[in-house]
Amino acid sequence: MPVIAVDVMSGERGALECIRGAVLAIAADPDLQLLLVGDANLIASELDSLRLAPGLRARLDIVAAAEVVLMTDAPREAIRRKKRSSMRIAIDLVHERRAGGVVSAGNTGALTAIAHFVLKCLPGIERAPIMSAIPNARSVTHMLDLGANTRATPLQLLQFAVMGSIVARDVHGVQTPRIGLLNIGAEETKGHELVQEAHVLLRALAAHADPARRIDYRGFVEGHDIFTGDVDVVVTDGFTGNVALKTMEGVAALIGARLRSEFRASFVTRLAGLIAQPVLRRVSGSLDPRRFNGAVMVGLGGVVVKSHGSAERVALARAIAIAAAAVRGGLVGHVDQALGAAH
Amino acid sequence: MPVIAVDVMSGERGALECIRGAVLAIAADPDLQLLLVGDANLIASELDSLRLAPGLRARLDIVAAAEVVLMTDAPREAIRRKKRSSMRIAIDLVHERRAGGVVSAGNTGALTAIAHFVLKCLPGIERAPIMSAIPNARSVTHMLDLGANTRATPLQLLQFAVMGSIVARDVHGVQTPRIGLLNIGAEETKGHELVQEAHVLLRALAAHADPARRIDYRGFVEGHDIFTGDVDVVVTDGFTGNVALKTMEGVAALIGARLRSEFRASFVTRLAGLIAQPVLRRVSGSLDPRRFNGAVMVGLGGVVVKSHGSAERVALARAIAIAAAAVRGGLVGHVDQALGAAH
Repeated sequence: MPVIAVDVMSGERGALECIRGAVLAIAADPDLQLLLVGDANLIASELDSLRLAPGLRARLDIVAAAEVVLMTDAPREAIRRKKRSSMRIAIDLVHERRAGGVVSAGNTGALTAIAHFVLKCLPGIERAPIMSAIPNARSVTHMLDLGANTRATPLQLLQFAVMGSIVARDVHGVQTPRIGLLNIGAEETKGHELVQEAHVLLRALAAHADPARRIDYRGFVEGHDIFTGDVDVVVTDGFTGNVALKTMEGVAALIGARLRSEFRASFVTRLAGLIAQPVLRRVSGSLDPRRFNGAVMVGLGGVVVKSHGSAERVALARAIAIAAAAVRGGLVGHVDQALGAAH
Repeated sequence: MPVIAVDVMSGERGALECIRGAVLAIAADPDLQLLLVGDANLIASELDSLRLAPGLRARLDIVAAAEVVLMTDAPREAIRRKKRSSMRIAIDLVHERRAGGVVSAGNTGALTAIAHFVLKCLPGIERAPIMSAIPNARSVTHMLDLGANTRATPLQLLQFAVMGSIVARDVHGVQTPRIGLLNIGAEETKGHELVQEAHVLLRALAAHADPARRIDYRGFVEGHDIFTGDVDVVVTDGFTGNVALKTMEGVAALIGARLRSEFRASFVTRLAGLIAQPVLRRVSGSLDPRRFNGAVMVGLGGVVVKSHGSAERVALARAIAIAAAAVRGGLVGHVDQALGAAH
């Protein structure tokens, strides 16, 4: 049974929302054990008040943590001074093999730094990227790096492609993930030398003599291809990936705001909005970031899943489910095997 | 009266659509002269068939060109072998000072290459970026570089900021443009060394002793800030800018497709769609790329405006109006003054 440590103290919505997310996760997955890390009294009294069925309650353990990493804590300070924080103790539990993975909705910089400090990159892996699912026209596109590293060498981009392929398969069940490398044109001559060199490495790996090593590399893709479903995994450096991710969020928010304000413009449009509401709800629901919450930090010596800071219970439960799937899928071992041996 | 050379042969929609765009532009602007460059017989017979008022017809001249740059022509080949093309001759007209600016909907790589080859970068300017308007919550954000250069040094990013500020003021009438530098976080410590160094240069320029040299630099912005209207100009390298631009287009297309398919789902939703249609049309109209057509290549020895390849007449007329505004605003002289002297 996978065991996941959940840092319930660091989310923007507070511990009670995180605890309820953990309860949702455990109710949805009968083969999951959670360690709730944080203020032990608070967690215990909240669990009591929820009057859970004994079968659920038995799969929730409490691990006490006296401190909390704040959103304002600098990553280095968090490593040095917050050794008794819920975030640190949750990660320590993975290091001590009491948990297979950790989920936190806290300070991304601190989580990245502590996870690297405690769990380390697997041998041969230069950088651990962050990967998440993004809605596309058919299902979802998995994209990495979304911001853990501001730069990536061609070799690192190659490693991102291999890790992305493994996550898509082990965590999300995509049989043979099709990989695209993000560029500013699909033609072979486009882009700067980093993507050019990565392209050569990726083509070589796609033609590797050992079929177990091969990846299904489809070449360069452009920004709009993230949303077509023509590839399953889009690989890029953390600067470009983070800008693309936040650009998407910005466009979606702009379109949503325009629709709301236009439907509110007059009595007639308000009526039209009322009639169109179920459809608009379905569309916005299908693109709802909560459905895609849970970004995996790949390449570390344990499963680390970052939840959005503002995630509420449903979104947090989804992040926990991703961590559980990664542990069940043997993600860490497969990444180690693929890139450790290749190195 | 500004004179603009229009390459009517290179757009994906054909010469007739471009000619009609030119007629729209001249009808909307009584103080504009156009040189239509291309197949002289075709242009003349189309103008005849439109039976224009003599006042309009008098402001349209025809310049013959025997060849066309194709979308498949490599930039270097286009420079070497397409010297009698409509694109080349239109740019030559600017070089010969028979026109103040040029508009083309042709092959971007070839246009960039020929414009650089014929018109050259202004002295002291290292790279000519491409800049365009993007809708935001209040009006538009001007963004550069959208893909002319895959890399940018800190000095080049500084130059982009100065040029962006001048275009926003001279072409789009923004009094004191607020400038943001695209990064993956708003905090001072975020990002790689290129944006860090550019940030230092930009802060120094914002505090320049000479008020005429100062720019209104507001610091780092993130992907979602492109759409808030908190800054007027967003500066980035051509790789990141191009990915962000195409990501926006992809998200908008995805949301549009989802809305259409959900409204088509059943009789009831089709009815709801019919009732909501005027509002949806207004929203999609307010974000319609045609309204934002016309990307300015800044930093060259003449005004060069790239129209989208698939632009129809209204969009092309808008690109021509932008070129006219740039000539009227004295764009080239102001850029030369700002960056030539600083150098």
